[in-house]
Amino acid sequence: MSIIPTSRAVSAPNRAKTPKGQATRARIVDAAAALVFEEGVAGTSLDDVGAAARVGKSQIYHYFADKSSLISEVVTRQTIAVLAGQEPHISRLDNWGSWAAWRDQLVREQDENHCTGGCPLGSIANELADTDEDARAVLVDSFDQWERAFADGITRMKAAGALRADADAASLASAVLAAVQGGLLLCKTRKSTKPLEASLDASIAYLRTFAP
Amino acid sequence: MSIIPTSRAVSAPNRAKTPKGQATRARIVDAAAALVFEEGVAGTSLDDVGAAARVGKSQIYHYFADKSSLISEVVTRQTIAVLAGQEPHISRLDNWGSWAAWRDQLVREQDENHCTGGCPLGSIANELADTDEDARAVLVDSFDQWERAFADGITRMKAAGALRADADAASLASAVLAAVQGGLLLCKTRKSTKPLEASLDASIAYLRTFAP
Repeated sequence: MSIIPTSRAVSAPNRAKTPKGQATRARIVDAAAALVFEEGVAGTSLDDVGAAARVGKSQIYHYFADKSSLISEVVTRQTIAVLAGQEPHISRLDNWGSWAAWRDQLVREQDENHCTGGCPLGSIANELADTDEDARAVLVDSFDQWERAFADGITRMKAAGALRADADAASLASAVLAAVQGGLLLCKTRKSTKPLEASLDASIAYLRTFAP
Repeated sequence: MSIIPTSRAVSAPNRAKTPKGQATRARIVDAAAALVFEEGVAGTSLDDVGAAARVGKSQIYHYFADKSSLISEVVTRQTIAVLAGQEPHISRLDNWGSWAAWRDQLVREQDENHCTGGCPLGSIANELADTDEDARAVLVDSFDQWERAFADGITRMKAAGALRADADAASLASAVLAAVQGGLLLCKTRKSTKPLEASLDASIAYLRTFAP
């Protein structure tokens, strides 16, 4: 299963025609993603992005219509990063060993980050879901992709007889994603991986109750 | 069980000595809470708060040392509101009927709000947990109080024999709070109560697996 997202932004006008233009555009998105992760969307100005990417504001406007379309691109970029960061396990959640390895990797990452930052997608969703309809649409896509990885694993476990037929892949996958998001928020607030561990462990243990 | 929080802010210098002063101070906190809920902390200036509360900035500084101490007070105020909004059920989660009623109330509230806003505490935590240590401490207290309501219900159900002795009240309560937070974030992002329902239902169903 491939979980590389299909980017909405690709269908938006992309004025980077040359390799150099593409590189500049990517540098702007990378700089914006790093700033948004640390300072939030409201705390990140296009001047900040320009300074960090070493480009003028006119160059930013050459590639992006406005801050909102740059932020939508940041969401697409972070979706790729967040999902890639859960590989190889998230693409093969068709056995309990992979679920355990996926859980351990998420917890370890927060431990290594000293429980700062939380989920880059969850943070942007929290900030923009009510105010930026374009960003919200991209975030819905992102969460759908993430959830689909869980649902695919559950569906394959059902097919293999490792989970009962009454396990509802879609709603279980949705509950797992909520457990990840809530666990990461509590982890970031409490500066401890304990709430994330409790949340993921409960989530996987609940899934296990659907074993035949 | 009383879940009225013990406010840290009460022990901070409170310069509102008269009933009129108390009323002004409360009006400032109410205005700040409403603005922060809609615009976020970064999007709320003390000028905005002053305008909404019909007080000058010097009056705000009379009652609060700085924006950060006002925000800490907003967290305390929202904690009271969030927990009160889950009454009467959250104080009596010692039977399955109360868990179901509590769940329905949370879902109904989001439905009535058209899935906007999310959790006032979760939103502030997401924004400030890495940058405002004072606010973070108050938020940890808030989440602890919220979680304690779940843990108390679980503990009483264990005592009454409705849950087995191996049900770990603390980690189950932590997982329920994560389910609430993650469910509310996905609800706000997807503009649908479905993810919140999936998350809460999985959480309560998992709890039920500890019934004897």
